[in-house]
Amino acid sequence: MVRVGILGASGYGGAELLRLLKAHPGVELVGFSSRKHEGRPLSAAWPQLWDERPFASQEEVLERADVLFLALPNGLAMGMVPEALKAGKRVIDLSGDYRLPPDVYEAWYGIPHQSPELYREAVYGLPELHREELRGARLVANPGCYVTAATLALAPLAAMGALRGAMVVGLSGVSGAGREGEGTFFAEVNENLKPYKAGGTHRHIPEMERNLGRLLAQGKPARTHGEVREVRLSFTPHLVPMTRGILVTAQAEVAGDWSQKALEELYRGFYASEPFVRVLAGLPETKGTYASNRVDVKPVYEERTGRILVFAALDNLVKGMAGQAVQNLNLMLGLPEDTALPKEGVWP
Amino acid sequence: MVRVGILGASGYGGAELLRLLKAHPGVELVGFSSRKHEGRPLSAAWPQLWDERPFASQEEVLERADVLFLALPNGLAMGMVPEALKAGKRVIDLSGDYRLPPDVYEAWYGIPHQSPELYREAVYGLPELHREELRGARLVANPGCYVTAATLALAPLAAMGALRGAMVVGLSGVSGAGREGEGTFFAEVNENLKPYKAGGTHRHIPEMERNLGRLLAQGKPARTHGEVREVRLSFTPHLVPMTRGILVTAQAEVAGDWSQKALEELYRGFYASEPFVRVLAGLPETKGTYASNRVDVKPVYEERTGRILVFAALDNLVKGMAGQAVQNLNLMLGLPEDTALPKEGVWP
Amino acid sequence: MVRVGILGASGYGGAELLRLLKAHPGVELVGFSSRKHEGRPLSAAWPQLWDERPFASQEEVLERADVLFLALPNGLAMGMVPEALKAGKRVIDLSGDYRLPPDVYEAWYGIPHQSPELYREAVYGLPELHREELRGARLVANPGCYVTAATLALAPLAAMGALRGAMVVGLSGVSGAGREGEGTFFAEVNENLKPYKAGGTHRHIPEMERNLGRLLAQGKPARTHGEVREVRLSFTPHLVPMTRGILVTAQAEVAGDWSQKALEELYRGFYASEPFVRVLAGLPETKGTYASNRVDVKPVYEERTGRILVFAALDNLVKGMAGQAVQNLNLMLGLPEDTALPKEGVWP
Amino acid sequence: MVRVGILGASGYGGAELLRLLKAHPGVELVGFSSRKHEGRPLSAAWPQLWDERPFASQEEVLERADVLFLALPNGLAMGMVPEALKAGKRVIDLSGDYRLPPDVYEAWYGIPHQSPELYREAVYGLPELHREELRGARLVANPGCYVTAATLALAPLAAMGALRGAMVVGLSGVSGAGREGEGTFFAEVNENLKPYKAGGTHRHIPEMERNLGRLLAQGKPARTHGEVREVRLSFTPHLVPMTRGILVTAQAEVAGDWSQKALEELYRGFYASEPFVRVLAGLPETKGTYASNRVDVKPVYEERTGRILVFAALDNLVKGMAGQAVQNLNLMLGLPEDTALPKEGVWP
Repeated sequence: MVRVGILGASGYGGAELLRLLKAHPGVELVGFSSRKHEGRPLSAAWPQLWDERPFASQEEVLERADVLFLALPNGLAMGMVPEALKAGKRVIDLSGDYRLPPDVYEAWYGIPHQSPELYREAVYGLPELHREELRGARLVANPGCYVTAATLALAPLAAMGALRGAMVVGLSGVSGAGREGEGTFFAEVNENLKPYKAGGTHRHIPEMERNLGRLLAQGKPARTHGEVREVRLSFTPHLVPMTRGILVTAQAEVAGDWSQKALEELYRGFYASEPFVRVLAGLPETKGTYASNRVDVKPVYEERTGRILVFAALDNLVKGMAGQAVQNLNLMLGLPEDTALPKEGVWP
Repeated sequence: MVRVGILGASGYGGAELLRLLKAHPGVELVGFSSRKHEGRPLSAAWPQLWDERPFASQEEVLERADVLFLALPNGLAMGMVPEALKAGKRVIDLSGDYRLPPDVYEAWYGIPHQSPELYREAVYGLPELHREELRGARLVANPGCYVTAATLALAPLAAMGALRGAMVVGLSGVSGAGREGEGTFFAEVNENLKPYKAGGTHRHIPEMERNLGRLLAQGKPARTHGEVREVRLSFTPHLVPMTRGILVTAQAEVAGDWSQKALEELYRGFYASEPFVRVLAGLPETKGTYASNRVDVKPVYEERTGRILVFAALDNLVKGMAGQAVQNLNLMLGLPEDTALPKEGVWP
Repeated sequence: MVRVGILGASGYGGAELLRLLKAHPGVELVGFSSRKHEGRPLSAAWPQLWDERPFASQEEVLERADVLFLALPNGLAMGMVPEALKAGKRVIDLSGDYRLPPDVYEAWYGIPHQSPELYREAVYGLPELHREELRGARLVANPGCYVTAATLALAPLAAMGALRGAMVVGLSGVSGAGREGEGTFFAEVNENLKPYKAGGTHRHIPEMERNLGRLLAQGKPARTHGEVREVRLSFTPHLVPMTRGILVTAQAEVAGDWSQKALEELYRGFYASEPFVRVLAGLPETKGTYASNRVDVKPVYEERTGRILVFAALDNLVKGMAGQAVQNLNLMLGLPEDTALPKEGVWP
Repeated sequence: MVRVGILGASGYGGAELLRLLKAHPGVELVGFSSRKHEGRPLSAAWPQLWDERPFASQEEVLERADVLFLALPNGLAMGMVPEALKAGKRVIDLSGDYRLPPDVYEAWYGIPHQSPELYREAVYGLPELHREELRGARLVANPGCYVTAATLALAPLAAMGALRGAMVVGLSGVSGAGREGEGTFFAEVNENLKPYKAGGTHRHIPEMERNLGRLLAQGKPARTHGEVREVRLSFTPHLVPMTRGILVTAQAEVAGDWSQKALEELYRGFYASEPFVRVLAGLPETKGTYASNRVDVKPVYEERTGRILVFAALDNLVKGMAGQAVQNLNLMLGLPEDTALPKEGVWP
């Protein structure tokens, strides 16, 4: 039994980690921390949990665990990871700290990087593209919800070298904004729908471009620190009045002639052996992935215009966050990749 | 591995049975039927399932399975159960057909009973009150969501003989009305809240009265076909704009002098060893039980008026339906009662 | 044209006042204030308004207006009203400051009263019961949503002297908690339903008891500062996942023998000439009153138990707040009582 | 007072027409019909209305009214309009029957046209582009929600000749699917988000292309039956878990060099004197237009990619349906264009 711990267990990502790791047969949850709730029982912060164990301090969790999940705001992991690695721990970081080259990170996040040298060691935690690298990783940079959806939507076209650009529309439930977010009051969100950070300003854009640029340069599988070709995306996120779920609707700009048949063959082939990616006959809907680690994908060729659209749906807190982190854990530990991860959702 | 089958796998209760039974280590799901979807793959009816096995006919399921879950509209089980039992099957019926004495059933449901003799054999499937009987049962009458919540809310007061009556306010999400229900359009339900079947006309009233009347007469545990004392409840259901979840707010009319302390002691003692009932420090909320088989209960003594209020929250499709059925299955098969049943919920 | 102003125009009640008063043909809106937004245009705080006039300071509004609407947190009006009255203004206060005798107010609100002498002058702003008094009022204490619904639900039984007590279950959308409220995040409220302040602790209880106690002592119409008979209510509020709407489900404890027919006659007679109260043939639902100033009421006699249930639905921000304030304004100004107040709602 | 009538008063569009026309000072509502509810009082079909007048037959409404609103399913208006016009009535048709040349209509709607000769007389009811034509119209083809939003979003770029194509993502609340629609159950829609009719198959596409093609050929104002230039759009609608509201997010493919400043100037100029179109400083959100006849629009220039995005939000039942029809009525009658039409919305 591997000893695992969670830093940042009072956010929604932390809650999903708790749910998944408590039911994981290969690990022992030895600690979880939250500054806000330290010393209080888990059930006081989380009404869904029947568990009176107290939140520990970060120090206690760091000491007890062999594998650490960092579910902290951006900018905190980079200060802790060096010591944790030195102490022989392995780390799965759910923040943006190790997902981008430090200079790009600093440009988009506005935070000076405290351990840029470790970026070279971090493995990008998207199992569908980086599975082999992840098996031996000590430090995993776990991608977020929009990026996972957009990357998996466009990856087959990128890996074959056809992708030239894309306009990505992202639609997200509110839980992606976290448990403390402003502007997430029910009365303001319910019966409302709004774009935000339009105009190419969302900080997940460089990560999407990097993921697809790696595939363009390297094909699949891609190495985190291998060659990257330049590609430019538009990405426009929208807030939708629901709690969970991400849908990406992408228009792919591609080279070559296409048909619905060719597209489907490409996608079915690309994801043929993936345990968590389903290429649908129909169109994806977010509820089909609710509380599961699955992604539903569908490419559509539009005869009238020659355009290619791709849709991808997932649960932003599972495959878009905590479930992906557990998938990475399973790879790191050499366990079956789907251990403790549901492939099927809760409906209705 | 026990071979189980589901009749009525295209309703919401059927969907939850599929979800729970597919993950159950002690059973093999050998068939599931739906008239509407016969021959089509499971995934065509249920977007959340990644399963291409076809819906079978009722006959095929009846033949293959050793234990049958009947998730059918009221009035259908009573025609099938006699033959199934004769063929050596065991049956868990999720309808109202065997929950009430046939004369009471006919009066409230308006359906003549086709196998009234089997009522004497049916065991009432509320494990917290009928656990021992259920271990040997061949035919289980699985109670529904409102009844489970109201009964467990008031059971401790009934079992000690103090309960004289109650006004029960039931608040339910829409999935209780099923996948075909009229009046459940989003645009009519969203931003709306309404009582229905007010005035003592809901057919779950005699079942609540019977459950509590058994406890009044027999204490706990109660035998399904033992003595019943008369007790009268008001019950007023309301439709709430959400998908899952039941909350019961009950005013208990009781004999004797009470205090918050005495109430809490009573409830904590009564449910001390129950795997799925939690007596809370605070007040229950439905989301705390989402997708779990747990019930959260809280009695409150109101100093100003001397009134006693009890709150109970559960997921109507799990503890109020499919999860309870699996709990009964576990008892029937001699498995640990909580096999394949989550005690903790999904949040947010 | 009467010059009106709003203090506290950045809360939801303020927004409804803006909407109603801007369309009111008998008044001119000469100012509106918000500490948070002072100097900014209205449209910056309220996306639904197409109005670039700036929020003024409290002082400016106090100076310009002849009638003031105070939509401020409890405890602020009592410090401003003495001066405003002295300056010849008339005041409609939407807070609790002048709704209760100062000693009762202090006991339930925990705030020392700064102008207790003015309580004797305040008229209680429920037009259905205090219409005549309101015509000449200088200071109106405008009641809130739960109290309006519960009072109007039970008033006919109280005014005839039959009411002995009641158990009131209140169900409210989230906007009642205001635009700043904690615990109102979408992800926590959506798909959730919860009681709060159970056990007789909600501060609207003494106001409900006082309203009904006046009717018990005086019949209808009642005078604000006339005799009050003691009556005890239980009141248990619940938060429902919707934005607007209040439903009260009350069990009335009454003297005498009743029938559905007698109940209906009583209610239809009592509300026969009311412009905003409708006694329904069926059961009320909150959406039927959405964005209107109407209350839908229905008494139900339960044959099996002899209990009487009464249901009342309204829009908490209109009849439960801003619309009622405008109704009071109309009475104060001698205008038709329904000026600028919709009797019909928005659906769906 | 002009005598108006509504055919199809039991759908959501009909309900909005009732709400708006009942409050309209220049018309008398002399009849409304619904096959389903004929003879029943209005309040029986619509809980929000306090109106006991009965639904009439179609014949009665046709006879009594001078102006007819046809809120019927596609394919019915074309059979009634010839006779109505012959009888001297004026008609505002909310269906698709007269929006497209009959051959295009037949190709996309699959319904043979019964009065193709009248298409030449119909005026396209988008006041912002066809105001002058509408003043004298006898027959108005009132456009729907998606088309109104997409057209107004892209019109300024089309009218100056710069538009080459567009990818339009449409996001709609559920009320657009009507009161009878399948797949609109709360439990299936809530916490769900899904694209539908992807791949260029939605029947509103030719209407959008025609509207923009007219502007490309004619500039503004455009004549309904004037020249049309060809332009190709992709349009992908999505169902969002809310009742009201449409948001269109469009990527415009344009000729020339652009900047945020140039875009804003173009849009502000184009809509400078429009009573119901607001060009925002920030981004539109649907709730800002709730229950109003306003459209909020915003063009965004994306520096990184050179792409142009345009957002438009409106209430699909008001500006996207019934409110637009009343705006057309006002033009036809020579009344102030905004009579009885709110420019500001209901929040929250």
